Order: sequence, then structure tokens, then C-alpha cells
Amino acid sequence: MAATISMGQYLFSRCASLGVQHIFGVPGDFNLSLLDELFKMPNLKWLGACNELNAAYAADGYSRVKGTPGVLVTTYAVGELSAMNGVAGAYAEHAGMIHIVGMPLRQLQKARAMLHHTLEPNMDHCLFVGMAEPIRKTHTILMDESTMAEEMDRVIEEGVKSRLPVYIYVPMDVVSVPLDATRLDVSLNLKIQNPNAELENEVARSTVELIKGSSKPAILADVLAIRHGGRDLVRKLAQLTGFPVHSTPLSKGVIDETNEQFNGLYNGSVSFPGVAAELESSDLIINIGPLLSDSNTGGFTRNISDKQLVLLGHDHCQVQGRKFDSMHFLPVLEQIVAKLEQKPEDYQLSKNKSWKKIETPVLNSSTSGPITQSFMWQRIGCFLKPHDIVLAESGTAQFGMPDASFPADICYITQTFWSSIGYTVGACLGACVAAKEMKRPGRVVLLVGEGSLQMTVQEIGSYIRFGFTPIIFVINNGGYSIERAINGEKQGYNDVSMLWDHQKMLEFLGARDDTGIKGKSFSCKTVEELESVLHDEEFNRAEYIQVCEVFMDQFDYPWRLSTQIQETRERMKKMQLA
Amino acid sequence: MAATISMGQYLFSRCASLGVQHIFGVPGDFNLSLLDELFKMPNLKWLGACNELNAAYAADGYSRVKGTPGVLVTTYAVGELSAMNGVAGAYAEHAGMIHIVGMPLRQLQKARAMLHHTLEPNMDHCLFVGMAEPIRKTHTILMDESTMAEEMDRVIEEGVKSRLPVYIYVPMDVVSVPLDATRLDVSLNLKIQNPNAELENEVARSTVELIKGSSKPAILADVLAIRHGGRDLVRKLAQLTGFPVHSTPLSKGVIDETNEQFNGLYNGSVSFPGVAAELESSDLIINIGPLLSDSNTGGFTRNISDKQLVLLGHDHCQVQGRKFDSMHFLPVLEQIVAKLEQKPEDYQLSKNKSWKKIETPVLNSSTSGPITQSFMWQRIGCFLKPHDIVLAESGTAQFGMPDASFPADICYITQTFWSSIGYTVGACLGACVAAKEMKRPGRVVLLVGEGSLQMTVQEIGSYIRFGFTPIIFVINNGGYSIERAINGEKQGYNDVSMLWDHQKMLEFLGARDDTGIKGKSFSCKTVEELESVLHDEEFNRAEYIQVCEVFMDQFDYPWRLSTQIQETRERMKKMQLA
Repeated sequence: MAATISMGQYLFSRCASLGVQHIFGVPGDFNLSLLDELFKMPNLKWLGACNELNAAYAADGYSRVKGTPGVLVTTYAVGELSAMNGVAGAYAEHAGMIHIVGMPLRQLQKARAMLHHTLEPNMDHCLFVGMAEPIRKTHTILMDESTMAEEMDRVIEEGVKSRLPVYIYVPMDVVSVPLDATRLDVSLNLKIQNPNAELENEVARSTVELIKGSSKPAILADVLAIRHGGRDLVRKLAQLTGFPVHSTPLSKGVIDETNEQFNGLYNGSVSFPGVAAELESSDLIINIGPLLSDSNTGGFTRNISDKQLVLLGHDHCQVQGRKFDSMHFLPVLEQIVAKLEQKPEDYQLSKNKSWKKIETPVLNSSTSGPITQSFMWQRIGCFLKPHDIVLAESGTAQFGMPDASFPADICYITQTFWSSIGYTVGACLGACVAAKEMKRPGRVVLLVGEGSLQMTVQEIGSYIRFGFTPIIFVINNGGYSIERAINGEKQGYNDVSMLWDHQKMLEFLGARDDTGIKGKSFSCKTVEELESVLHDEEFNRAEYIQVCEVFMDQFDYPWRLSTQIQETRERMKKMQLA
Repeated sequence: MAATISMGQYLFSRCASLGVQHIFGVPGDFNLSLLDELFKMPNLKWLGACNELNAAYAADGYSRVKGTPGVLVTTYAVGELSAMNGVAGAYAEHAGMIHIVGMPLRQLQKARAMLHHTLEPNMDHCLFVGMAEPIRKTHTILMDESTMAEEMDRVIEEGVKSRLPVYIYVPMDVVSVPLDATRLDVSLNLKIQNPNAELENEVARSTVELIKGSSKPAILADVLAIRHGGRDLVRKLAQLTGFPVHSTPLSKGVIDETNEQFNGLYNGSVSFPGVAAELESSDLIINIGPLLSDSNTGGFTRNISDKQLVLLGHDHCQVQGRKFDSMHFLPVLEQIVAKLEQKPEDYQLSKNKSWKKIETPVLNSSTSGPITQSFMWQRIGCFLKPHDIVLAESGTAQFGMPDASFPADICYITQTFWSSIGYTVGACLGACVAAKEMKRPGRVVLLVGEGSLQMTVQEIGSYIRFGFTPIIFVINNGGYSIERAINGEKQGYNDVSMLWDHQKMLEFLGARDDTGIKGKSFSCKTVEELESVLHDEEFNRAEYIQVCEVFMDQFDYPWRLSTQIQETRERMKKMQLA
């Protein structure tokens, strides 16, 4: 008799084969039997978050650090719906996620039983399956025992390749269905292959030609290069060519910023002086993994013509004017790098370099007095050390951190495109888990405003519960500043509760004498106070969880935020006149 | 020139006309201009919650107390998706909700601009509109200026009549479109009317005949009678007939439990001894507003035959075997009551009553020692006072509270059908707001487990921020007990963080000396300690916010929970054999 494995263990074995060691989620009565199968897996651990939205954020954060899709388990209806915004964010920003949803017994589904969590009038238990359609690449409902193994494989493979969320729906009664265990001897096919090899060759060949012929080339490496596993190739391309490299708000850290070739973060007209002019005057811009949303293009002020452009995207490539649909950049970039490696001297930019290094301005060199947006973020940049993971919340942190200069090997997480506030507090949990799995040296640093923190605060308790020790900077500036900058600066709708005492947060959530879990909280109203904390060696070591609360003015905004809003307003005016 | 009113103010005027005085939600850049219109309304106040799911729960809780749909404002994509589970709960349990979603400018929608919160590949800004289809009665997207006023009216009218959520999508640029203000002189048409008056008459007439001829009649008043505004009619029917009245787990409190006619909570075989036998032996059961989900029917053990039944539902009625589709109980019940009022003596049950009063057993009369599930809930029942609002979280509270006896005029909120854990913490905020608007005497009492509390804890901060003073009982029993009872009693997935110190919660969230906001926290491990708190006069007055943490055993479950699970297991076994 052939060896068998339960459906549940088959699924989790496939997850483990991706390098996943922790599964995120929240239990619910329709996924408990599935979790029993998970608990039989010696190489996987369950990590229960406080709620499903936060669990989804955690899975997303995990994926961004690890490069492997985070796995999320929720329950029928209430759980899967609560997670939706988190899954949608992973979809928007290609974070990748395998979302496994427990469902009622097949027989009860057929009977359309009016179980709890089920909607009238028609009691279709698959109603919620339909709702998630726009936020996933593909899905399967494991109803048919004869196809479920191959269906799981198909969905996971598509999820890994696309870096988009996929859904696997598991009726309670199928978790112990015996499947052929020998299937697991064959690895999943996770290799990205373009459908048309000839066209792929052509893109690679013509790009190499353009590289050779260019007199002022540059690389613009965007976030989807990172998300789709192309970061190392980008770095190799930079090394082989010696070309200057630019990042974007979303891809900050894609290349070591201490590298001489790093030439600034490009965000259209919302860039540091000189950066845009330098890049935009290139005769060749190799743009890898672009994500052209408003806040990642300086409010649509990116100014690069087709003539200058080689675009290597995840769903198409474009060489100057010519577009190649359904072409993924990864095999193309592999080819390009391989060609350059054969004869690097042919392609290297002459030592007499044609490009100008743009110096990063110092925005504010305060040594005392109130802490301003212009001071804060560059100062945080100096605080960072190689190998740190940094999460910048949608808000002033996100618009401020592009000002910072990073040391080598920073993993930077921000959600500039989907921009769901509260995201980083959940994502930080996942980042901590991934860092632990990877034995990554360096600290986890969370930068979050007090309004965003209020959205998802309970997960700070999970950091403590699971023994993680991130450094949490809480920007306490009296409400939703990003929204004040946009509209209703002094309107009450932009206020949040100012009654929370962040100095008591860690104590409430578990870091106290009686639990034996150490935590420390600091409060800074001046540059002097902040400097004293940032220079504290113990603080820097991050051996226990710490909060550094930083008070800032309610109406002080990062210049990038104000500038983008100004750009947007002007564009709107023109549109309305047009 | 005719008087005009901005679109935004038109919409909010219509909301105000329903009796709404507070609008719930979270700001986001796509709804800020709409909120500016709200802030011009002298008779409406904005109430910002910490996140959108909690805001939806709050709007739902508000609706259940006030009988008027709660109004929820969220922003495009991130906001509306975060709220989904909360809206779905309002749909499932007919709480009613007007969900207003801010959207991008119409011109940017047409251009399919890649704004933040927008999904590739097709950048359809209406993608999220489609996702919410199953959790609403109807919706409108205000694109066309010539129809938007009537569209808003149509959607609100349908929302009020159906008691289901409705969606109004508001592109940012339409909020100040001038609309004809004189439309507001005509009230909305909110009257429930059945399409076929003749059939309606027939149902009323034949019900009255059956009432006259019955020798052992009873009323079974379920939750949709309350949700659809029929509670007073139910009470009138009871008063006119003298019939015994039963509630269900979801409708507890539909009739004053101190009333001699109240004859117990019916939940199939999961009822107190004698209750089911007494009701099920009736020759006529007038069942108003039924909701026949698993946990509201003792795990589908409700045992009432068509022959006994007059079912007066929100979407159909049924007189013995005969079904009348698309018939709403409200006009029918009005007719029945009117007929009985004409000649009440014809219909009253003889003084020589044919029914037996079922006494409520005392489950546990402990005066010392550990606090058990069998003790707790009946004790809470005794603690309650007339006019209190009580919220029982999905979990042990929800399965325990049916044991309690209520004083007169309790408003009881529980989500037994949708069963989303964490719901009551948000709903409590809405209940507090509604109670304030209604100048309702009595306290707001929240009964929540520590696992559920972790889902939505930040909203406790909103109670403090807005000056509400609920009494919060936190059942601290080491994890998700409801799930332990179902599966994996000792599995780690049913654990939650046990490191939180609930005694520090109010301080952290704002009730402290330095804010001048008073709060008090109690911790009870024994019956003696609990009795001391429950007898404390100051505690009883609830003039400031209070937490009473009650420690209970991890593996102690309410009998109703264990019994329903047992019933379900047996049914499953039979199904699998069949």
C-alpha cells in the first residue's frame, strides 16, 4: 500500500518546503481541525495574532523580509473578511501570501445549513469566496478528494511565482483525507519562465546593446525588483556596469546606500535637489520592477521618456518604445547579467564617469530644542546599523524616511502604495518572526505615529508574548498628521485620543516585573532628550523591548508630504481647467 | 433661484431625519471633504473610532439600541475593506447600517489613475464596490449629478425598511454639488408595505381565528421582531392575549422577564428543563421574527411542526402549512393587534390558564470559592437593574447569559448568529452613544472574555475619550474557551497572551490622575471578592469607567455551550452514517 499523508499535513508540508517555519493566523471553529494537522508538523510553528487583520499584516511583513509568501490561516466568514484589507495590501504591493481559510463540512455546505457566520437569504457558504476574487491571483476550494493535492500544488506555485496572495479553502472534513505522500518527493515548480524564449532573448540582447552604446546610463531599481526576488541581480548588474543606481520611496535600500554608485532616491519632482535632473538626463534608464503609483512617482511627476527607457517589469518589458507583453524581468535580468559577466570590461562605464554624484543635503542640524520632521528622519537614519529591519508607517514616517541615509543591508518596509494605516504594527510582528528564522543579525525598528498605533496596538502584546525585542518609535503629534496636511488641518476629524500614556503601554501588554519580561520606555520632547536615548548603549543593543515616544508638533509635516500634496493640487487644477 | 444644499449636507440631513445624532467612522484622504460637509451640520456629531472594523461594530451596536441604522463613514479601499466583517455582521443580524464610502474624484476614476489604495492590473476604482455586494441590500455610486438626490433617498429608504446595510459611494468631487434643497421638505417613505394587501389581510385574519380557537397557545418572539421594530407590538400582543411568551438566545429581553407571562428562553433541547416541552406541546405557536441559525435553535433541535406554527417573518409569513412569500410581519402584526384590541375578551386565554409557568432553576448558589460558569451569569443577572444595556460577547458570556434572569427593560446585545469575536467591544461604544442620545436611564454593562478583548481593545480608549462610563467585566480564563470546548481543549492554538495586566488597561488608555479622568479596576478570583464588588454602591452607580476582571477556570464551560456541541456532534455522526 502506498504511503499516505493527510490533506492538512500535505498542505503544510508544501508550505514548509518554501522555507516557511511559522504560520500566522487566528483560530476559529472552522479551522481547528486543520490546526490539529499543523500541530503534528515538527518543523512548523503556529503564531496566533490578536486579530485577523493584524495576522494578515504580519504574514505580509514576514513575506517582505523572508522573500517567501507568508502563510495565513483564518476561519470561515468572520476571519477571512476581517483579513481582507491586509490581504489586499499584499496583493497591491506583491508581498505574496498563502491564505488558508477553514470552511464548514462539505455536507453542511451542500445542505446550505444556517450555521453561524452564514448569510441569508441563500446560505451559500461560498459567498465569501467570491468576495475575495479581486485580491488574489488564484484559489481553490478543496471539495474533490481526487484533485485536491494537485490543486494545492497549482495554487501554491502560482502564488510563489506571482508574489500575489492565493487562497486555499479547506472544508473541515477534508483535513484528514489521505493523499498520496509520494507526490511530495517531486518539488513544486517555482521557476519563472517566460512563454516566448525568443522574445526574451531579444529583450536581453537589445538591452545589452543599449548598455554598450550608452554614454549616460543609469539604473532605477523599484520595489517589484525586490518583491520578485531580483534584488541580488540588481546589485550584480550595478556592480558589473558601475552605473549609478537610484531607488524609489518604495524600494529604498534596494542597493546599499553607502555604495558610491547609489545616487539618490528618485520620486519625480519630490526628490532631493539634483537627483531628478541627474537621472532624467540619462540617455538610458534601466528601470527594474517599477510600481508607478502616485506616492512612488512624486504625485505622477516622474519624467522619463520611452526613448530613454528599458523597463523590466513583472508583467511586461519595454525596450525604448517596444513593448513585450507577459514578460517577467527575472529571466531577462539573469540573461543580461550572464552576458555582462562574460566580458564585463565591454560594458563598464569608463572610469571617467559621465555621471555626477548627488550629495544628500542635511536638512536640519539642530542640537537642541523641539524635535522637527526635518530633523527626525535623517537622525533615525544615523541611528540605524547594518542589517537592521526598519518599518515606516504610512504617515509622516513614510514621507520622512526617504530623507534618511541608510547603512549597508537595511531591510526597509513601508506600504506607500496600499497605504493602510496601522499596517506596520502588524507587519513588524511578521518581520520579527522572519528575522528570527533567518538568524538575521540587526535589530527591528518600528516607526509609527500614535494615530496609526491606535489601529493595531494589541500586536505590541504579541511581540512581548513571543519574546521579540523591537525598538518602537512612537511619533506623538496629536492626530492624523498626514491627513491634516491634505485637508482639514484643524478639523476635529483628524484628532485621535490624546489620553493614551505610551509610557505605560509595555507594562499593560506584558513587560513588567511580575512577568519577568523586561521592557523600557522613553519620552522625548527635545533634541537633547532624543540624543540621549539614541546614544544610550543599552537602548542600541535592543536586548529587550523598548518604546521611544517622540513628541512633535501637530502641524509640522515632512517636506516630501507637503510637496507631493502641492503637486497634486496643481495637477487637479489643470485637470479641472482641461 | 431655488434653494440649494450641497450633496454632502443633503446626505447628512437625510441621516439626521432618521434620528441619528452621531456618525461613526475613520477619516481617510478620500472622505475628508465629505467630513467637511458633516462638520457644517449643527445637529450631527462625528465620532472617530480607532479603526474601521471597530467603527462598524459601533455603528451596529448603536443601531441595536436606537432602532435607527447606524451611519458609518470610511475611506476608499483600505477603510471599506477593514470594515467588511463588521458590516457583514450587521447584515446577518439585521442591525441596519448606512455605510458611506469616500472615493477618488470622478475624473481620476475615469482615467483609472494609479492612486494609492488602487489595485492593478486594471485600476478599476469600483473594484471594492463589487466586493461588498453580498453584505448589503443595495447601493449607489454618486457619479451622476442629476440623479444623486433621488439615489440617496432610495438607498436610505431601502436600508431603513430592510434593516440591512446599504452603501453610498461618494467621489470626493461631488460633496459640494448643489442639490435642490426643497426635496428635503418631503420626508422619506419609511413605511413597510406589503405588495399584496389581500394576502396580508388573510394572514392576519386566519391568525386571529387560530388565536381564538387555540386551547394551548404561545408566543415565541425572536430577534428579528426586535430588529424590525416590532418589540412593542409583540408586548402588546402578549398583553392582549395573556399568552405565555418565550424568547430565544438572540431575542432575550424581548419581553420583560419579570412579567408573569414570560415562560423561558427557548433554544430547542438546549433550554432549561421544562421550557421546550411546555412550548413544543402548544397547539399554536405565534413565532415572530425568527432567525433559525444553529446557536439560536439549540443546534437545530428546535422542534415545532408546521401544524402548530404561525410564522411572522421579515420576508415571508406562514400560517400552518401555507406560505406567503414577500410578506413582512410588521403590517400583519399591526392588523392582528388592532383586531384583538377591538374585542380583547374574545381572544384572551381563560383565567384558568392552560399553560404551566416554568421556574428558572438556580444553577449554583455558591457563596465562596472559585467563580464558575454556572455561578457567574445568573449572578450577573441579579446585578442588573432596569434599563441597563448589556452586551454579551461571543464566547462564554453569550452561552452563559441565557441562564440569567433579567429585570424589566433590559436592552440585550449579543451576536449569536454572526459570532464575530471582539464585536461587543466596538458595539459597546455605539451602545453608549445611543444611550446618551436617547437619555436612556441605566448603565451599559459589557461582558467580554480576555481573548475577545484582545481583538478590539483600543476602543476602550474611545469610551474614555468620549466620556462614557460602562462597567466592563473581563472574563480572564486563559484563552479562547468557546473553542477549547469545541476542539483542541489543550492545544496551543487556543491560547492567547496571558501577560496583559487588565488592572492597568484603563490607566494606559486614559483614565488617570494626570488626565483627571476617573477609572477603577477590580480583580476577582473568588465569589467573595466578586460579591464585594457587586455589592459596592459606588461600583453600582457607574459614574466613571470601571473594569471588573473575573478569573475563571480554563476548562470550565457554560452548560449550554457543552450541550449544543454534544447535540452537534451527534447530528454529525448521524449525517455521516446516512
